[in-house]
Amino acid sequence: MSLMPVKERSIFIEEDAPRDGIQNESIPFTLEERISLINALSSCGFKRIQIGSFVNPLRVPQMADTEKLYERIEHYPEVSYSALVLNEKGLERALACGMEHISFFISASETHSRKNNNCSVKEAVDRTRGLLEKAKSRGVQVQAGVMNAFGCHFEGNVPPERVLEMIRIFVACHVDEINLADTAGLGNPKQVEDLIERVRDISELPISLHLHDTYGFALSNVYAAWKMGVDRFDACCGGLGGCPFIPGAAGNVATEDVVHLFESMGISTGVSLEKLVAVVQTIEKKLGRSLPGHYARTHCRTLQTS
Amino acid sequence: MSLMPVKERSIFIEEDAPRDGIQNESIPFTLEERISLINALSSCGFKRIQIGSFVNPLRVPQMADTEKLYERIEHYPEVSYSALVLNEKGLERALACGMEHISFFISASETHSRKNNNCSVKEAVDRTRGLLEKAKSRGVQVQAGVMNAFGCHFEGNVPPERVLEMIRIFVACHVDEINLADTAGLGNPKQVEDLIERVRDISELPISLHLHDTYGFALSNVYAAWKMGVDRFDACCGGLGGCPFIPGAAGNVATEDVVHLFESMGISTGVSLEKLVAVVQTIEKKLGRSLPGHYARTHCRTLQTS
Repeated sequence: MSLMPVKERSIFIEEDAPRDGIQNESIPFTLEERISLINALSSCGFKRIQIGSFVNPLRVPQMADTEKLYERIEHYPEVSYSALVLNEKGLERALACGMEHISFFISASETHSRKNNNCSVKEAVDRTRGLLEKAKSRGVQVQAGVMNAFGCHFEGNVPPERVLEMIRIFVACHVDEINLADTAGLGNPKQVEDLIERVRDISELPISLHLHDTYGFALSNVYAAWKMGVDRFDACCGGLGGCPFIPGAAGNVATEDVVHLFESMGISTGVSLEKLVAVVQTIEKKLGRSLPGHYARTHCRTLQTS
Repeated sequence: MSLMPVKERSIFIEEDAPRDGIQNESIPFTLEERISLINALSSCGFKRIQIGSFVNPLRVPQMADTEKLYERIEHYPEVSYSALVLNEKGLERALACGMEHISFFISASETHSRKNNNCSVKEAVDRTRGLLEKAKSRGVQVQAGVMNAFGCHFEGNVPPERVLEMIRIFVACHVDEINLADTAGLGNPKQVEDLIERVRDISELPISLHLHDTYGFALSNVYAAWKMGVDRFDACCGGLGGCPFIPGAAGNVATEDVVHLFESMGISTGVSLEKLVAVVQTIEKKLGRSLPGHYARTHCRTLQTS
């Protein structure tokens, strides 16, 4: 595989704090606060922001009213605004409000699928195939991803063959991007390399990674993936997040740490660390606690003590 | 460069908690507590443990009485017990009590050298050359390392040429191992790869890495180094530590996270994670706070909530 020279491979970060970051927070975010958060993130220079999900507000109250959210945020022309959809009703809602980019996820773990999506893996696969086809037929940009692609909190190892089977379906449905999600944060860099290599064998579509930092491996996984030619990463500022249906799962890899990793190596992300740190501080103030990301914390501590 | 097959490249970890881990703690460790800590670590399966340093106890009180410590710990035949030496007096003390392995460090940063070693870089280099020759002439195993090899909190970038100049001196003095220390935790994986490549150009000696996790890059740096063929790493259980003379510097990479990283990839470290977690919990109880390492914390939380 021939890679582009490093300098030309700028990094594409999807900021997920407004969805994966806050969906599990016990402190509620009002619609106004979610709008402010997204507007602040838009000004940071992200290429894509996942603003929320079209799911059942009774199950995930923080994600209610995503239609109103999409209508009221500032739409920066250089930012793509995306949302998560898990079923037919969610897709109808997303299409009705004119979303330009939609993410669909199915879980490679039977137990997690039932807890998270309320259906078996087979049902999710069958259902999602129809959703992907419908979304593509409506001209929407589509990302399709596999949750627990690197292991499952409940079931342990997830056979790569099961992940690849799902990806073959995504490819057949002409999705625009494949996402490999380490939902429980169990993957290691060697697994990341191996799975990326196998996905490349069946598709040339862009691959993005969605990583949680349960064991502190997330940045190693980012780096290993980047060395394999992957340059799209989901992240949540501050390291917010964690799946509500996986006990012990830690937050997402912190966006500012991903940005700092690449920028320190001379690789552009387009994201302003200064603006992003300000967003993290606003969220920390609201939540009344420090977030796990390294950069914001260390940067401020160093400024104070130097 | 031809590397050995992965399975044969077992990992060599030097546990540094009894030295770098506790030297900066404001809560004092008694001699008995230090002995218990080292004995507990010996039972975990480490190949080398840095038990302390022979430095001025007025400047670093936690490191007093290293002679008594060395005399009273249990000496496991499969463990090498090492100590840090920075000057002539320290070397005399280490030799007098029969240390079999000694680590010598000089800083690549002028400012840090004056704060940490109380002398200029040139003075440290000249002095250390004599120390290395003397130690080798007495049949001691010698590790020689460069502090701030990847950047300095005070001075920013550290030119690799300066680091390589020091390593040439180490090589000329016939040391047994070269250590590259990211004392302030500023290095990124690309720097690690580049510097290792340049060190390899001038020496075939084993290289070990000493990493701090200031920006969360430590495990990425471990992985990048391992991909370059490096298999020796310093670490502190729990992620203890931080240089007393560098404001804002975070603790060492947590040993249990390094062990978990490699073991999860099927690469042997020889270290028992179960025993190591028990050591971390004992230290946390004494210090009255959680330590930053991921594995011990996540492992226990997952057990509680599953």
